[in-house]
Amino acid sequence: MKIEILDTTLRDGAQGVGVEFSPDDRRRVILALDRLGVSYIEAGMIASEQDAAFFESLRDLELECAKLAVFTRTARVGTDPRDDELLRLAAAAPVPAAVIYGKAQLYQVTEVLGATAEENLRLIRESIRMLRDAGKEVIFDAEHFFAGWADSPAYAMQTVDEAFEAGASRVVLCDTNGGMLPDVVGMVTEAVAKRHPGRGIGIHCHNDLGMAEAATVSAVLSGACHVQGTVGGVGERCGNADLDTLIPVLQLKLGFDCAGPRISRLTETARAVSDAANRTFDESAPFVGGYAFTHKAGAHIDGVRKDPASFEHIDPAAVGNARSTVVSGLSGRAALLDRIRALLPETDPCSRSDPGAEGGSEPLSKDDPRVIRAAAAIREREAAGFDYEEASASLTLALEEALGLREHFFELLSLKVLVDESSGTPEADTERFSASAVIKIRVGDREYLTAGEGNGPVNAIDGALRRALLRFYPELESVRLTDYRVRVLDSKATASAVRVAISSTDGRRVWRTVGVSSDIINASWQALRDSVEYVLANSRKKTKDSAFQNQQ
Amino acid sequence: MKIEILDTTLRDGAQGVGVEFSPDDRRRVILALDRLGVSYIEAGMIASEQDAAFFESLRDLELECAKLAVFTRTARVGTDPRDDELLRLAAAAPVPAAVIYGKAQLYQVTEVLGATAEENLRLIRESIRMLRDAGKEVIFDAEHFFAGWADSPAYAMQTVDEAFEAGASRVVLCDTNGGMLPDVVGMVTEAVAKRHPGRGIGIHCHNDLGMAEAATVSAVLSGACHVQGTVGGVGERCGNADLDTLIPVLQLKLGFDCAGPRISRLTETARAVSDAANRTFDESAPFVGGYAFTHKAGAHIDGVRKDPASFEHIDPAAVGNARSTVVSGLSGRAALLDRIRALLPETDPCSRSDPGAEGGSEPLSKDDPRVIRAAAAIREREAAGFDYEEASASLTLALEEALGLREHFFELLSLKVLVDESSGTPEADTERFSASAVIKIRVGDREYLTAGEGNGPVNAIDGALRRALLRFYPELESVRLTDYRVRVLDSKATASAVRVAISSTDGRRVWRTVGVSSDIINASWQALRDSVEYVLANSRKKTKDSAFQNQQ
Repeated sequence: MKIEILDTTLRDGAQGVGVEFSPDDRRRVILALDRLGVSYIEAGMIASEQDAAFFESLRDLELECAKLAVFTRTARVGTDPRDDELLRLAAAAPVPAAVIYGKAQLYQVTEVLGATAEENLRLIRESIRMLRDAGKEVIFDAEHFFAGWADSPAYAMQTVDEAFEAGASRVVLCDTNGGMLPDVVGMVTEAVAKRHPGRGIGIHCHNDLGMAEAATVSAVLSGACHVQGTVGGVGERCGNADLDTLIPVLQLKLGFDCAGPRISRLTETARAVSDAANRTFDESAPFVGGYAFTHKAGAHIDGVRKDPASFEHIDPAAVGNARSTVVSGLSGRAALLDRIRALLPETDPCSRSDPGAEGGSEPLSKDDPRVIRAAAAIREREAAGFDYEEASASLTLALEEALGLREHFFELLSLKVLVDESSGTPEADTERFSASAVIKIRVGDREYLTAGEGNGPVNAIDGALRRALLRFYPELESVRLTDYRVRVLDSKATASAVRVAISSTDGRRVWRTVGVSSDIINASWQALRDSVEYVLANSRKKTKDSAFQNQQ
Repeated sequence: MKIEILDTTLRDGAQGVGVEFSPDDRRRVILALDRLGVSYIEAGMIASEQDAAFFESLRDLELECAKLAVFTRTARVGTDPRDDELLRLAAAAPVPAAVIYGKAQLYQVTEVLGATAEENLRLIRESIRMLRDAGKEVIFDAEHFFAGWADSPAYAMQTVDEAFEAGASRVVLCDTNGGMLPDVVGMVTEAVAKRHPGRGIGIHCHNDLGMAEAATVSAVLSGACHVQGTVGGVGERCGNADLDTLIPVLQLKLGFDCAGPRISRLTETARAVSDAANRTFDESAPFVGGYAFTHKAGAHIDGVRKDPASFEHIDPAAVGNARSTVVSGLSGRAALLDRIRALLPETDPCSRSDPGAEGGSEPLSKDDPRVIRAAAAIREREAAGFDYEEASASLTLALEEALGLREHFFELLSLKVLVDESSGTPEADTERFSASAVIKIRVGDREYLTAGEGNGPVNAIDGALRRALLRFYPELESVRLTDYRVRVLDSKATASAVRVAISSTDGRRVWRTVGVSSDIINASWQALRDSVEYVLANSRKKTKDSAFQNQQ
């Protein structure tokens, strides 16, 4: 059975604190969602001429699967919807569908809207008719529906009746304040579905109880066929139902059809939308997170090797994700085997050109001296504070170093960083601090000296290093840092060892590196150097290393 | 009805990628959880002498509510639990309870463990008995219970029977690979509860379907009385059931008792544990997140003004949270009153020398212009990233600044920091980096120039500042830094704002200060300067400020 997905990332999602989309971002999101195969995309609210211009700009978009929808409200109390400015903008938007919200809770109608029960029903009825007359498919969001049901089920149901009567193709039951438990949502949805058999009941949940997805599933199992949510669960307060979770739960666990075979694009879509929203991707997210199929405890790694189902409830490839193991104090040599095999391809029986040929080496065993040596090197670095869990790229480089395979792309001849404050006032402000870096490197037999300045010493080094290397390695042009984290490893105050972890991207891939030192500048330098050397090494290799997060 | 909470943040939580706790962090977490009133705290796995030493170090902890528990596994196949090294370590740990896991899925027993069905039952039985004989309360975690039920319900049930029979006080049904839907979890739990009426059934869910909390609630409604989870839902892969959500859902929505009135400490506990784990706090988290009751859409703000229930499903104060505070609970004017009263003693009716005298001012009101001004200043600094929750000393100084009361003990004329690497080799090591600082200050009409060097730039500044000030303020002799933490505030990479929080001590007292800047050197400088000025200001005052942590 088909379950329609309506994505509201660009509308309800954008009501989340810190979530904002430029018009370009919105186009990227729309295209990514269409490739994933959702049924509807709510492209935004329409409340101004500027919004209208954005919708105009979508006219040339060619979508394969999704219908675009515009979002607005019912007409103002006491007015004729045909004269309502927002409804007219919505009617004129060049998209096939309109989502319109109206109140379904009597208390809200009388106390917040200040209208009579009957007037609210008229607004719902006539607003829907007005948009139908303009040729739109109309989806009605029954706001505060579940709270309304608790107050006055008869009135809440009347709003649903009225909306279907007026020609809405879908009536969506909204848990607007997010306070309903899954069982209640299921029970109420069932009552509505029984009264309107064969009609399109939808569900729109918020995450204030941490149960938006469970409540949505409960509604679907009770008769809803239309699901609203956002990518990554972004949205006002605690967010909306998370489509990254709902699509695979409905399709892979419960046998509904949400995205068909396109579900294998789920992980890449989640990352693309998160990137457009300028959010830090939640690596712990179910199904699509980088850690969703990452095993850390030794017993888990061992279990997954013997039988993936031990600690994996689906095949990660089904959603375009992949298994990985992290190397840490909690895991042993077994976890390093896959990594080392990838670095020594001749030892991998699957990639030997002629498996039967003489001299073809055996699959690398746990007891191979190279594995033991590499594991010892990693353990030593972990004891010094290196944490390779989140820094696969540095792990690859450290293993290459231990195996004698590491290639160096430049030699650092000198690095000087100066941070200067000389304002002569007791209040030190950001503006009065300046940081500059001077770096000298050698590549082959050529030496190069550059300077950089920036917001703080690390930013200055980053700039100077990039400038120095660009003339030798133009492929670094697109590389930039996306995250920078510092952890103090113990509490011996300012002389403590610090660990710096950075994420880098070239626009397509993301990789993570790490450095450790009692000097934060040194630790940052190690992570920066690894980042650059990792991407240079991989741009020259035929095989791609698994430390690129989005290829795992 | 009481629902027991077992917190496993320090054990299952620590299996999450990027989550780690130092022994000091673990003590902080234990104390915070005990203040919240959880029933059990799993303090960690016991797998080495080092783990055993950590448990020994907990001997002096005085807890009000919680029982500490040690975590381990059943004995190895074919062995006598009395000879098992890990079980002996667990038996010897000075804590009242032990959590022990064993397999409840037949497939796992034969294929992963490599044991017979009967041997696994023997291991469960005898391992529990061994720990009971050592005087421990034993909680049995039935690993893979739900997957086991799907394969062979009879065998899964046998493990439960066996565990109760052997003396386990609780048997905990674990959805180890996180793949079960809430309905299934409820149904299976009900079957177990029916077979063992009146016995302690527990539930342990993982979040691979984004439904760990819904599944846990489903189990409780089906008869479980013991709930396992982690603060913030940290844990392997997608994490464990999130106690920050479960405690209020069970207590405030469903009427169970989890934490009694202590539930109002939920938000502060969540933040404290997140900080100890060095995680970025999830501001969108249900109940405890800074955005959980933050409204952004105009219609929502208006609705909440007319009736909070429009967009709030509970009173935020019930969990120690507040409406529309983004950074912390301190920005409300009411919360600042006590602080300000302490700084303006003449307004405090208790400290006036003659309360009845003419001209004796009224107790400071919330609407006093000074309170309004000070609150605005703090709000502005919080918006810039300052976090005063853990930095009371800096809060006092910022309030004094806003009230025009701050005394400056020195003037910074210039500060230069140089970090130098000039080894001429590609491998940069700690030893080859050197950091030095030159600082020039004025005290009264005297100027003084000093230099310092150290492990990294902050250490060098600290040394130089201390040396410069000592000749003016000999009381600084005993002051030293005890902790230094860095948090990156957003993800615009190396130009991100960073927050530096330091703890200082004079051997008797501890105080905490904070600095924020895009330059880590500047942020560190602000925190160092506050630390020194705070202790100098207090050594000259008769009244002691409450920001000394150990006097709070």
